[in-house]
Amino acid sequence: MKSIDIKKIPHINEITAQHGSFAGTPAKPKETFNERMSAKNKVVPSLAEAIRLTGLRDGMTISFHHHFRNGDYVVNMVVDEIAKMGIKNLTLAASSLTDIHAPLIEHIKNGVITHIETSGLRGKLAEEVSRGLMDFPIVFRSHGGRAAAIESGELHIDVAFLGAPSCDPYGNANGYNRDEENATCCGSLGYAKLDALHADKCVIITDHIVRFPNTPYGIPESNVDYVVKVDSIGDPKGIMSGATRFTKNPKELLIAKTAAEVIEASGYFYDGFSMQMGSGGASLATARYLREKMIEKNIHARFALGGITGQIVEMHEEGLVDKILDVQSFDLIAANSLKNNRFHQQIDASVYASYLNRGAAVNELDFVILSALEIDTDFNVNVMTGSDGVIRGAIGGHPDTAAGASLSVVVAPLTRGRIPTIVDKVNTVVTPGSVVDVVVTDQGLAVNPNRPEIKALLEEAGLPVTTIEALRDRCDRIVGKPEPIKYKNRIVGVVMYRDNTVIDVIHQIDEE
Amino acid sequence: MKSIDIKKIPHINEITAQHGSFAGTPAKPKETFNERMSAKNKVVPSLAEAIRLTGLRDGMTISFHHHFRNGDYVVNMVVDEIAKMGIKNLTLAASSLTDIHAPLIEHIKNGVITHIETSGLRGKLAEEVSRGLMDFPIVFRSHGGRAAAIESGELHIDVAFLGAPSCDPYGNANGYNRDEENATCCGSLGYAKLDALHADKCVIITDHIVRFPNTPYGIPESNVDYVVKVDSIGDPKGIMSGATRFTKNPKELLIAKTAAEVIEASGYFYDGFSMQMGSGGASLATARYLREKMIEKNIHARFALGGITGQIVEMHEEGLVDKILDVQSFDLIAANSLKNNRFHQQIDASVYASYLNRGAAVNELDFVILSALEIDTDFNVNVMTGSDGVIRGAIGGHPDTAAGASLSVVVAPLTRGRIPTIVDKVNTVVTPGSVVDVVVTDQGLAVNPNRPEIKALLEEAGLPVTTIEALRDRCDRIVGKPEPIKYKNRIVGVVMYRDNTVIDVIHQIDEE
Repeated sequence: MKSIDIKKIPHINEITAQHGSFAGTPAKPKETFNERMSAKNKVVPSLAEAIRLTGLRDGMTISFHHHFRNGDYVVNMVVDEIAKMGIKNLTLAASSLTDIHAPLIEHIKNGVITHIETSGLRGKLAEEVSRGLMDFPIVFRSHGGRAAAIESGELHIDVAFLGAPSCDPYGNANGYNRDEENATCCGSLGYAKLDALHADKCVIITDHIVRFPNTPYGIPESNVDYVVKVDSIGDPKGIMSGATRFTKNPKELLIAKTAAEVIEASGYFYDGFSMQMGSGGASLATARYLREKMIEKNIHARFALGGITGQIVEMHEEGLVDKILDVQSFDLIAANSLKNNRFHQQIDASVYASYLNRGAAVNELDFVILSALEIDTDFNVNVMTGSDGVIRGAIGGHPDTAAGASLSVVVAPLTRGRIPTIVDKVNTVVTPGSVVDVVVTDQGLAVNPNRPEIKALLEEAGLPVTTIEALRDRCDRIVGKPEPIKYKNRIVGVVMYRDNTVIDVIHQIDEE
Repeated sequence: MKSIDIKKIPHINEITAQHGSFAGTPAKPKETFNERMSAKNKVVPSLAEAIRLTGLRDGMTISFHHHFRNGDYVVNMVVDEIAKMGIKNLTLAASSLTDIHAPLIEHIKNGVITHIETSGLRGKLAEEVSRGLMDFPIVFRSHGGRAAAIESGELHIDVAFLGAPSCDPYGNANGYNRDEENATCCGSLGYAKLDALHADKCVIITDHIVRFPNTPYGIPESNVDYVVKVDSIGDPKGIMSGATRFTKNPKELLIAKTAAEVIEASGYFYDGFSMQMGSGGASLATARYLREKMIEKNIHARFALGGITGQIVEMHEEGLVDKILDVQSFDLIAANSLKNNRFHQQIDASVYASYLNRGAAVNELDFVILSALEIDTDFNVNVMTGSDGVIRGAIGGHPDTAAGASLSVVVAPLTRGRIPTIVDKVNTVVTPGSVVDVVVTDQGLAVNPNRPEIKALLEEAGLPVTTIEALRDRCDRIVGKPEPIKYKNRIVGVVMYRDNTVIDVIHQIDEE
C-alpha cells in the first residue's frame, strides 16, 4: 500500500480514510515481553535456517568482519554451511582475511566462492591465491575504501554474516558482554557496523545471547534480521593477543626512539595533538617514547584514533589522551575500556576513514605511525606482498591514514635478514609516495622531498636525516640487489587506493 | 573515476594501475589538527552561507527536529533566512511543530512554505491551518511513521537543519555539552539522528562549538555537511520543563492510581517487565504508583522506553529499571542522565518505532500509558483535534506504542469542563481502536472487547470495570451530547497511521 504524494493532493479532494486496514504492520502482541524474548523473535534455530531465510542464492555477495582476527570461526562456519546447501558463485567481501581462513581454498576450488574482496590475505589461502587459485583477481580495498564502496553501492552486500560476542534476541549486538568474564570479546565492532547498516540482510552469529536491550550496542536491532546462537564464534586467544607486550628487539627500539624524536621535532607534537599508532612492536615502542616526552613537556593528546591498544588506554587513563576513537580494539585492555569508558567511542568504518562521507576521523590526524614491508625511492609503500611476490599482508587503514594525517611516519628496519626494505620499486604499491612523509629505519631516516619544511626541522633537531636513495644504497651494500621476482602474466589481485581506483595489480608468481 | 567491476575482470587482463591520479580524494593536509580545527573545517560564517552551500532551491524539502519543543529558535531562524533569499515552495518536514512556530504563518502566506509534514501542530499556526491557511493539507505522521517514511524514501529530505547544543568543527553533534552548566541542553537527539543519516545535506546549527571529537556523539561527522554557530538556538526554559513535578489534581491522581492497578492486575507486571510512560500529569503519577508497587513486590523493569523523564531516571538509579532507551529527553534530569550514564542509551527514531526496519523497540513493550483528547466506543483515540475541530495536538509515538505494546492503557478524565472524552465517534482517528486495550477514566474503566482475558483479570482484581458504552453514557449524562462540529469540505490535514496509510483526514472548520 503506497502512501499519498502530498504534492499531488488537491485543495478539496477525495482522500478516504482506511481505518483498520493496516495489513503492512506487525500484529499487536499479547504475550509478555518476557515470553516474546524466549519465543518469537529473531533467533532462528540454526545457521542453515538463517541462510535459508535470507534468501541467499547463487551469485550474491556475502560479507564478514575481521574483528576476531586469527581466532575467527565465523567465516569458515558460514561458508561450510553455504557449501552444504549447494549455493555457488558467491562474492565473499570480508573486511579482512587471515591464516585461519585457509579452508576457503576448498570452497574456491568447488566454485562456492568465485570472487573475494578483502583488505588483506595471509597464510595458505594467500599463497594459493598468489599461485593462481582463483579465476578472478581478488580486490583489495583499504578500510576507508571499503567503507566508501559500501556507502556508494559499488560494493553491494546481499547478506552480512556478523559474529558478535553478545546479542539480544532482537539483534542488538556488541563486541563484549557484561555477564561472563572469559567469554569471547573483541571490543569495537567498527567494521561490522557499516555492513549491518547497508546489507540487504544481516545475520548476527553469537555464542552469547543476552537479555534485551543489549545496550549500549555496537549494532542496533533496526539493522538485524536474524540471530543465530552457536557454541563458539572464535578462539579468544586468536581474537586478542592479551596484554600489550613491549618489544625488546634493539633494532625496533632504535627505530621507535627515532620515530618519537621525529614527531617531537616535526611541529606536530604540541598540547592538544592527535595521533594514530599501529600495533606492531616499533609502533608500540614509539608510543612509549612519546608518552615520556608528553610527561616531560607537560602536553597531552586531544584524541587517539584507530586500532586501539592497551597502551593508548593507559595513556588515556593517565590523562595524557583526552578521547579515544576506536574502530578496532587490538587487545583486551582496549576492549574492556570500550565497554566501561564513555570517552572511548566505538566508531564505524565510515566515521573512521571513508573519503566519500561528509568527514572521516583520519582527516583530523596530526600524525600516524605506519609499518612497511617495502618502501621505494618514490616513497611508495608496500604492505601487501613479500620479497617473493607472495601475498602476505593487509592494506588496513594504511593509505587512509597516510593521506589523512598531516605527518605520516613509516617505520621499518632497513633490512630483514637478507631482504632489503628500501628498494628501487616496491613489488606492490599500496600507499602512494605522495602521502608518505618520513621513512624511519634503524640506520637513518629520509624525508619526502615534497616536505622540505619537515626535513629542515628534523635536521635542526640533529636527527640522522639522509635521503631515500642513500638508504636504498645502504640496503644494496648490505644485502645486494635482490633478483627480480618472476611473475606470470595473469593478475591475481587488484589493489585499490582509498578512492577505489586501481593503484596496482598483483601478478601470479612464476615458480617454474 | 569509476572503479572496475570485479565480476567483469578477465583472467588475464589489461588493468592498468593509476599511481598518483587520485583526484577524487581530499588533498593531504599540512596544517596541524589544531590549526585545521580553527580554520578549514565545516564551520561556515553564517546561516545564509550554509543555506547557499547546500544548494537549496525552490520545491525542495527541508527538515527539523522538535527536541527543543516550545523553546525552539531554529525553525523560525532558518525559514526567515530562506525567505530572505527568495526561495519558495518548500516542504517543511519537522518531527513536530508547536506554539513557538506561529511565525511560519507569514512564510506560508508568502509561498515560502507550501507543504508541511509534522507529528503535531499547536497554537496560532494550528488554528490558522484549521481555518484553511494552506493550499495543501498537512501530512501528520507518527514518530515511527516518519522514521519509516524517511527510510523508505517516501519522505526524501533535501536539507536537514538540525539544532544541537554542542557540535565540534567537523560536525559531531550532541544534545548537551560538557563545558558549561547552564547552556541549552535537550538530551537525546533521537529524531534528528535519522534526518542527519538520510538527508542529502545536513546543517548543524549550534550555540556551542566544542573541540573535536565531541564524543560520545548523537550525530557523527560522517553525516554532517556544514556547521553554523549562532548566538542562541533556543530558550532553555521552553526546551526543558525543569525538574519533574507531580500532579496534585485529585482526578489525575485517581486515574493514575487506577491505571497502576490495571497494570498490576493485567499479567504484564512481573519481574523484568518493560514499559513506556508519557510525560503528562496522570502518566507521571502512574509511574509513581507503579514504583511503590515494584518496591512492595520486589520486582523491577528490564527497560523503560520513550520520551524519558526524571522520574524514570530516578527509578533507574534506585535499581528499579535496568536500562533506559531514550529517543527524547523530557527534562534536565533525563538529559543529564543520558550524558553521564552509559545504560541510558540514545536511540534514533527508527530504533524507537519504525515499523519498516528490522525491529523497533516499541515492539518489545509490555505496556504503555497514553493520553487522549477523545476516545470513541470503537476505542479509536484522538490526540489531534479539539472539541471545536481545531488542531491542537500531536500524534507522537501514540499509534506506534499502542500497536507495539502488549497492553496499551489510555488514561483521560471522563470530561474536561463541559467537554466529553468518551464519544460515539472521535473527531479524528489517530490510533485505531484495534490496538487500544484499556481506557481508564476517573469514573471507571473499559476494556476493549478483543481483550476478554484482560477484562477478566481486572474484574477479578476488583477494579471498576465497565463498558466503553457505559462511560460514553455517563459522559452524555454529565455534559450532554455536544453539537456536531461544523466542517467545510476542504481537507486541511491528512493523518497517517504508523504504516503511512491514511487513517483519517481533518477538515477545515466552518465558523460561519
